[in-house]
Amino acid sequence: MSKKSVEVLDTTLRDGSQGANISFTLNDKIKIALLLDELGVEYIEGGWPGSNPKDEEFFKEIKKYKLSKARIAAFGSTKRKDVSVKEDISLNSIIKADVDVAVIFGKSWSLHATEVLKVTKQDNLDIVYDSINYLRSHGLKVIFDAEHFYQGFKEDPEYALEVVKTAESAGADVIALADTNGGTPPFEVYETTKKVREVLHVKLGIHAHNDIGCAVANSLMAVKAGARHVQGTINGIGERTGNADLIQIIPTLVLKMGFNVLKGRDSLRKLREVSRIVYEILGLPPNPYQPYVGDNAFAHKAGVHVDAVMKVPRAYEHVDPSLVGNDRKFVISELSGTANLVSYLQGIGIVVDKKDERLKKALNKIKELEAKGYSFDVGPASAILITLKELNMYTNYVNLEYWKVINENNGLSIGIVKVNSQLEVAEGVGPVNAIDRALRMALQRVYPEIGEVKLIDYRVILPSEVKNTESVVRVTIEFTDNKMNWRTEGVSKSVVEASVMALVDGLDYYLQLKKTLKTSADNYIA
Amino acid sequence: MSKKSVEVLDTTLRDGSQGANISFTLNDKIKIALLLDELGVEYIEGGWPGSNPKDEEFFKEIKKYKLSKARIAAFGSTKRKDVSVKEDISLNSIIKADVDVAVIFGKSWSLHATEVLKVTKQDNLDIVYDSINYLRSHGLKVIFDAEHFYQGFKEDPEYALEVVKTAESAGADVIALADTNGGTPPFEVYETTKKVREVLHVKLGIHAHNDIGCAVANSLMAVKAGARHVQGTINGIGERTGNADLIQIIPTLVLKMGFNVLKGRDSLRKLREVSRIVYEILGLPPNPYQPYVGDNAFAHKAGVHVDAVMKVPRAYEHVDPSLVGNDRKFVISELSGTANLVSYLQGIGIVVDKKDERLKKALNKIKELEAKGYSFDVGPASAILITLKELNMYTNYVNLEYWKVINENNGLSIGIVKVNSQLEVAEGVGPVNAIDRALRMALQRVYPEIGEVKLIDYRVILPSEVKNTESVVRVTIEFTDNKMNWRTEGVSKSVVEASVMALVDGLDYYLQLKKTLKTSADNYIA
Repeated sequence: MSKKSVEVLDTTLRDGSQGANISFTLNDKIKIALLLDELGVEYIEGGWPGSNPKDEEFFKEIKKYKLSKARIAAFGSTKRKDVSVKEDISLNSIIKADVDVAVIFGKSWSLHATEVLKVTKQDNLDIVYDSINYLRSHGLKVIFDAEHFYQGFKEDPEYALEVVKTAESAGADVIALADTNGGTPPFEVYETTKKVREVLHVKLGIHAHNDIGCAVANSLMAVKAGARHVQGTINGIGERTGNADLIQIIPTLVLKMGFNVLKGRDSLRKLREVSRIVYEILGLPPNPYQPYVGDNAFAHKAGVHVDAVMKVPRAYEHVDPSLVGNDRKFVISELSGTANLVSYLQGIGIVVDKKDERLKKALNKIKELEAKGYSFDVGPASAILITLKELNMYTNYVNLEYWKVINENNGLSIGIVKVNSQLEVAEGVGPVNAIDRALRMALQRVYPEIGEVKLIDYRVILPSEVKNTESVVRVTIEFTDNKMNWRTEGVSKSVVEASVMALVDGLDYYLQLKKTLKTSADNYIA
Repeated sequence: MSKKSVEVLDTTLRDGSQGANISFTLNDKIKIALLLDELGVEYIEGGWPGSNPKDEEFFKEIKKYKLSKARIAAFGSTKRKDVSVKEDISLNSIIKADVDVAVIFGKSWSLHATEVLKVTKQDNLDIVYDSINYLRSHGLKVIFDAEHFYQGFKEDPEYALEVVKTAESAGADVIALADTNGGTPPFEVYETTKKVREVLHVKLGIHAHNDIGCAVANSLMAVKAGARHVQGTINGIGERTGNADLIQIIPTLVLKMGFNVLKGRDSLRKLREVSRIVYEILGLPPNPYQPYVGDNAFAHKAGVHVDAVMKVPRAYEHVDPSLVGNDRKFVISELSGTANLVSYLQGIGIVVDKKDERLKKALNKIKELEAKGYSFDVGPASAILITLKELNMYTNYVNLEYWKVINENNGLSIGIVKVNSQLEVAEGVGPVNAIDRALRMALQRVYPEIGEVKLIDYRVILPSEVKNTESVVRVTIEFTDNKMNWRTEGVSKSVVEASVMALVDGLDYYLQLKKTLKTSADNYIA
């Protein structure tokens, strides 16, 4: 396969930071930049120096680090209509940022030139030419983002082409066609990009947004049509519905289209980790459904037999999950067999034959509970506890003798527990919080390792047919000790009781792993 | 524009239910089916009758309802290799389900025939032919899902074509090409679908999965290449990374590709509501970044001037948000909203001008609460109560002075309330049930009409990004008096307090309507 290359411009720190509820500290930005450099992107768009002081700080600070491959790019607009380039604040801020690469956006949709910018079409061409020329004359490499290009081309193709030809003649090194409002369907992106490819000689790029759910596909279609530069963000963060997700685009370019991207195939193995670190920095839970890297991306549920997948994986999986740093996962549920349990147990270092009678007993218990409202694919650690008991590998670390919660109409709750003969009381912002705190206070005295355990997800579902205040409630809790995550569940007509069950299972499971099995394996079970 | 049509098969209830953490009750399934019928889909794939009893129940139960347009389809596989069609359990379960339409999947990738099914390529053709023919002979319309078609076509195009030609000759009414493992890039979907279009005469369909983030685009590309039948799920729920999201596909087909879909353009306005209700049924928070319908989909950040957007909206928005039932949102100023309230108030017989200052005040209060975790589109009756207060149309019927709940570790709870000077105590199966009972006992003495009110839905959502036992909880409750339904909500860090708030609002709202407004209008607000 001929190794054509596609270069990557990451704009997580610039366009990504425009997303709702997205905010980076200077430290966050440095951390992400180093991560992107390690991953092997060509350009890191660090910010818009003319627009805010934090971005200017970033350009200063990042200079203290030696990057292996990535070049830092500063973003800005073409010059304002009523000043000369030398007096333009935006262009001069880019120069002052003292970077190698400038990314500037300009109008390519005639409607925007005449109705928004309020200049003639010729004036806009001059603005584009002068701005690029000025930055080039200061020794900068220039990437020109043709704003609203696809919309512009649709309405006034001649003018849109004239704009990018002007950018080329002014010396732009890359011309990125932007689908700024994200509304162009993939076939149109392909046709338009192809036409531009026919008339320009410079390297073409694509900058896609996800407003019709096609940002990833549009990026691929543009490359198919000849673009060799892709702009996007980690996890697709960005304004409105987000930017194109590089985490999803890159593996397809490499594994399905034969392009050389980043530092080669090995870089793909880092994608899951990079994706997770960015979620963590943002305080967002990872998206389990994210293509390639999500926890469910290679999960097999009912209907498909584990044996069949193991035997002919390519019959069921579009790529080998390990290529993108992910794992195959078998989900435990009422429809699954002992093979699923076996693969879970392997994850915590227990090897059992799948025909073992004790496993069948455990599975029967699990099925009985599922008929009552449990769903062990959402809280598998609780299923493992049942299995450990059947296997005689369970130690009774947590013996909850009594509990009680009193909720007052100021929203506060008092939780009382008696666990392992220790009586404890705690106040909380709700009944579950109160019991959670009382439980930990009592247990931590005997098991200091409990101090490592944090609760990171708490969900309440009413799985019954009719839902009212007498219905069965299923509580699912996810725990972490920052090395591994695990999920448990509890079912009861009382939301408090169901929560207590899931809480106790979570701490119990951790103690089984740490004290009896002495495992620290990453058995993340979503 | 010539009105070519694309028909929609919704498989939320079948393929969607294979998703991790997805589980529907029979009631949920009926509710969703009715919603889909109202939306205007052609086919509702209700389940796999051979695989589990719950699906069989659904086919029985849905017969009790008169659907306006949608036809219920039962799913299954082609016959097993070692039995005749007459003895095949799967095919006969479909017939027994007594529906008009069968959807059956069969192998079209030769690897699957020989390595998974372990039959000759000819045997597989016979299986496909016989299965379709058998169902047709029982008067069923047959949709044939060609499993792994795109993979199969890539490796063994002749055979893949032979399979679908066989299906056509057996009388299949629709042949849906399935990208079962979701790994085919959009340009390949286009090319392959086009080739199939050239050799078949029957209606072609597309069934896409999102494993490389292209399910929406692949569905559009297949239609571009000649498919006129699209399969997908609401919100893209489904196994692994999910199915193609109909909520995203349909507006592009209508607004950008000129197709006639559902019941015409007006159906698009219901998309946001349908999306939200399905999230709510699943106990999942809506995705704010979802194309077209998400809260952020038409959000304009501070940098864009409100006036500019208002003046030339098409310069900034790829479609008018109201076309898909969504709103433009300005981060800096509140503009829209009062119109929504006005239309709700009309539903209960109150006519107010949308420029009324009191409405703006109410809206500000609502927005403050939404910032704290409320979401009034899921519990609008609580928003109406706030508005009635601002309009001076509120009477204080329910004055809750004090409440307390004690939960014991036998699962039972004691609820104590003092409401309208009446002290009452009740026992319940959980804290919410106990308070619910105590409240009604106290109120019913003064307001016997409360006796008509039943609770028919109760849901708990943690709307914050980080979820733990200290998180804010949103409780939504649906009430009915068998003539009208209404939904309220409560938000607190305590699930008990949030429930009490929603309970009180529900009874309060009913009394406002019955005693003050004397309305019996059917203001069902889902």
